[in-house]
Amino acid sequence: MSSTMTDELKATLDPQRKSWIERANDAQCDFAIQNLPFGVFSDTGNGNARVGAAIGDLVADLAVLHEAGLLRLPASAPQDVFARPALNDFISLGRDVWRSVRVQLSSLLARETPTLRDDAALRQRAFVKLADAKLHLPVQIPGYTDFYSSKEHAMNVGAMFRDPKNALLPNWSEMPIGYNGRASSVVVSGTPVRRPNGQLKLPDQERPVFGACRKLDIELETGFIVGRGNALGEPIACEDAENHIFGIVLLNDWSARDIQQWEYVPLGPFNSKGFATTISPWVVTLDALEPFRVAQPAQEPQPLEYLRHRGDHAFDIALEVTMRPEGATDATTIARTNFRHMYWTMAQQLAHHTVAGCNTRVGDLMGSGTISGPTPDSFGSLLELTWNGKNPLELKSGGTRAFIEDGDELTLAGWCQGDGYRVGFGACTGKILPALK
Amino acid sequence: MSSTMTDELKATLDPQRKSWIERANDAQCDFAIQNLPFGVFSDTGNGNARVGAAIGDLVADLAVLHEAGLLRLPASAPQDVFARPALNDFISLGRDVWRSVRVQLSSLLARETPTLRDDAALRQRAFVKLADAKLHLPVQIPGYTDFYSSKEHAMNVGAMFRDPKNALLPNWSEMPIGYNGRASSVVVSGTPVRRPNGQLKLPDQERPVFGACRKLDIELETGFIVGRGNALGEPIACEDAENHIFGIVLLNDWSARDIQQWEYVPLGPFNSKGFATTISPWVVTLDALEPFRVAQPAQEPQPLEYLRHRGDHAFDIALEVTMRPEGATDATTIARTNFRHMYWTMAQQLAHHTVAGCNTRVGDLMGSGTISGPTPDSFGSLLELTWNGKNPLELKSGGTRAFIEDGDELTLAGWCQGDGYRVGFGACTGKILPALK
Repeated sequence: MSSTMTDELKATLDPQRKSWIERANDAQCDFAIQNLPFGVFSDTGNGNARVGAAIGDLVADLAVLHEAGLLRLPASAPQDVFARPALNDFISLGRDVWRSVRVQLSSLLARETPTLRDDAALRQRAFVKLADAKLHLPVQIPGYTDFYSSKEHAMNVGAMFRDPKNALLPNWSEMPIGYNGRASSVVVSGTPVRRPNGQLKLPDQERPVFGACRKLDIELETGFIVGRGNALGEPIACEDAENHIFGIVLLNDWSARDIQQWEYVPLGPFNSKGFATTISPWVVTLDALEPFRVAQPAQEPQPLEYLRHRGDHAFDIALEVTMRPEGATDATTIARTNFRHMYWTMAQQLAHHTVAGCNTRVGDLMGSGTISGPTPDSFGSLLELTWNGKNPLELKSGGTRAFIEDGDELTLAGWCQGDGYRVGFGACTGKILPALK
Repeated sequence: MSSTMTDELKATLDPQRKSWIERANDAQCDFAIQNLPFGVFSDTGNGNARVGAAIGDLVADLAVLHEAGLLRLPASAPQDVFARPALNDFISLGRDVWRSVRVQLSSLLARETPTLRDDAALRQRAFVKLADAKLHLPVQIPGYTDFYSSKEHAMNVGAMFRDPKNALLPNWSEMPIGYNGRASSVVVSGTPVRRPNGQLKLPDQERPVFGACRKLDIELETGFIVGRGNALGEPIACEDAENHIFGIVLLNDWSARDIQQWEYVPLGPFNSKGFATTISPWVVTLDALEPFRVAQPAQEPQPLEYLRHRGDHAFDIALEVTMRPEGATDATTIARTNFRHMYWTMAQQLAHHTVAGCNTRVGDLMGSGTISGPTPDSFGSLLELTWNGKNPLELKSGGTRAFIEDGDELTLAGWCQGDGYRVGFGACTGKILPALK
C-alpha cells in the first residue's frame, strides 16, 4: 500500500467498514463504501449536471452535502466545484483535496456516523436513486490517447493481419505503443452508437466502395483520467506517474475493422475509431483501487531506464463483456478477462507519453488498449474472439455473431472483489443503431 | 466567388480599397485592408488577452472598438466576446456575425471613413503596434487533426521509406489520409521548442537507445479552423464543408524523424509529433481568401461520391520556409512552394473526417499535411529537401544543414498576392532549444 496514504485514508479502505446505506454492503454491489467513485449526474428534480458519488443503489449529491456543511473544501477553493457539470475543476484542486473529500464521505456514510443517517430531511435532498439519475460524461476530456499495451492482443492482431511467426513488431516490447484518439466523440455509457459508414475495400474489387461497416467491433479497455497535468517540455518520471492519475473508467473503443484495415497505413486508425468511444460514468479513484494492486507481468527485455519503476503497478480488476441482441431477454457473456494481464503499466504509459515533452492536462483520458487474456475466451474484441469472423459466437438467445449487428447492446463490466465488498465500475454500455442511408 | 457573398462583403475584397493606416497599403504588407485576420493579443498597457484584427503594422483592439460603439454585435450575442482570451466564442456566433464584423471593420478602416481616422483619442486606445503586441494562441483547440494531402510529399516519403516503385499506397488516392494529432502541444508562433528526447533505433544496434532526436525536422503546412461544428453521427457533406471553415493559419508540424521511424508502426506517429506544433497567430478568414480561389489538381481516379464537389476549392497561397542559425544575421530560404498544389481539398478533408459520424467543434484545427511542390526546392520538409540528410543544404550564413540544429530558428511565411495588396499570414516561427539532459 502506498506509503503516502494517511491513516484516515487507509481507514476508508478497511474491509470491515460498512455503510448505513444497506445496498452498499452487498458483496456483489459495485459501489461499496470502500469505492466512492466520482461522477456527474442530473435528475428530473434537478436538471443541472453536478458532481456525485455512487454508494450502493444511490448517488450522493456532493453539492447538497457541501452546502449543508457536511463536506468541506479548502477555503482557497471555489466553493461551487460540486455544482459544475464536469469533474475537472474538482480534480484540479489536487490530490490532497480528492483524498480529503473521500475521507469525509466515507466517514459520513459509515454505519456508525449518525449525522446524515439520522437526518431524514437532508437525506431526502442529498440522494438520488441511481436508477433515476441521468449520468453524464464525468470529465470534459481535453485529450484522448489510446495505448496498445496487451501483449496477447498485439500478438493476436499481428498474427491475423501480418505474420503469425513475427506477430509482435520489434518496437512493441520496447515502449507502450499508443496513438492520439478523437476526444470529441467520447460518450458516456448508455449513449446509442450509430454504425459508421466508410470506405470498404472488398477483396474482389479493385477500388473501395462506400457503405456501412460490416465488421463492427468492440475493444474492451480501461482508461485512466489524468489528475495532474505536466507542462510542455517537462516529462513525468515513471516513478512519479501514478501521482498524476485521478482514477479509472471502463472504455469501449468501438472499432470498424473493415474501415480500419483499408485506412490505417501509414498513419494509424482514424475514421474506424473516431465515430464513438464509450466510457463508464463513474471514475474509480486510484485510492480505492489500492488494495487490489498486484505485480505486473515480467518485462523482457528490461525496459529502457525512463520506463522503469519499482514495486507493483498492475491492478486486479475482473472484466467481462456481454452482448444482448435487440429484444432478447438474455445477454450472453462473450469474454472474461482481467486488467492485471496488461504488459505495460499506466505509469509506463504516462511516462512514455510525456518523455518527448508532450504536455498533459487534467481530464485527459488514456485508454489501456484492448485487454486480452491468454485464453480464447478472454480476448477483448470480437476480431479475436471469432478470429476475424471465422468462428462465430453462439448466443444464449439463439443465433450467432461474427461481428456486431444492428440493435445489439454491448456492455462492459469490471470490478475488484474484496473480502465481502466490491469496488466496481458500473456498466459501460452502448446499443448499435443502423447506419445512415 | 461564392454566391452567398453579399455586395457589402464583396466590397471588402475590392483591390482598390485603401486604408488610412498607410502601412496596410504597401503591396508587400501581409495585413492589407482586404485581409483583416483575427487573433488574440495582449500588451504591456493591458495584460488581458483579447481579440484583435491585424491591419498594416497595427493590431486593432476589437474590444475597445466595440465598447466605443463602432463595432456592433447582434443583441442576442454576449457583448464581451472580444474581451475573451480565445476566438472560440466569437466564432461560435456564426458566419453572419464574422462577416458583419468584417464588413464593419473594413468600412471603419477605409481611407474615406473619418469616424476613427479623425478621432485621435480613440485611435490611441484602439490600436497597439504589432511590434509591441504579445500574440497568443488565437483559438482554444478542442481537437487537432493532421492530414497528409500533398501527393508530392506522400510520394517522396514513400520512395524514401518504402518502395520507390510503389511510393504511393493504394488508399492514398482514394481518401484524404489523416490522423489525430495532439491538441495540447499546439503553440503560437514565437514559442521556443525544446528538442525532444526519445527512443532511437540505430542501424548497428539490436535495441533502441534513449537520447535526443538527431533528425529534427519541420513540416510546412497550413491548418484550417472549424467555424461550425457538426453533431456526432451527422456527417458534413463535401459541398457544404467550406461553410464549416472559419479560416486558415500556417502550421509547422515539428517532427522527430528518427523517433518517428521507430515508433510509427502500426498506429502512426506519436511522440515524434506530439512535443510541439506551431501555428501562426492570425487566422485569415476564408472570406479574405476568396479572390485567390483556384482549381485543385485533377483527381484520378475520380473520388467516391461523398468526396466530390463542384467548382474550385484550392487556394493560391505562396509559401516559404527560412532557417536562421543562432547568431546569424541572414536567414536562408530553404523552400518555396504553394498551397494550390494540394491534391485533396480542405472541403474533402472535412467531409472525410466526419463521414463515419465523427463530430467536430468550433476551434478544431485541421492540418493540411506537409505541402511539397513538384521540384526539389519546393519540398516542405528537410527530410525531403536533403533526401533524409544525404544532400545537406548550404546556408547563406555559412555551414550546411541535414536536419535542424540547436539554436536554429525556422520560419514559415505565406501570402496571397493581390493586385497592389497582400493577404498574408504573418510569421510562424520557432527556435530550437537543446534537449533536456
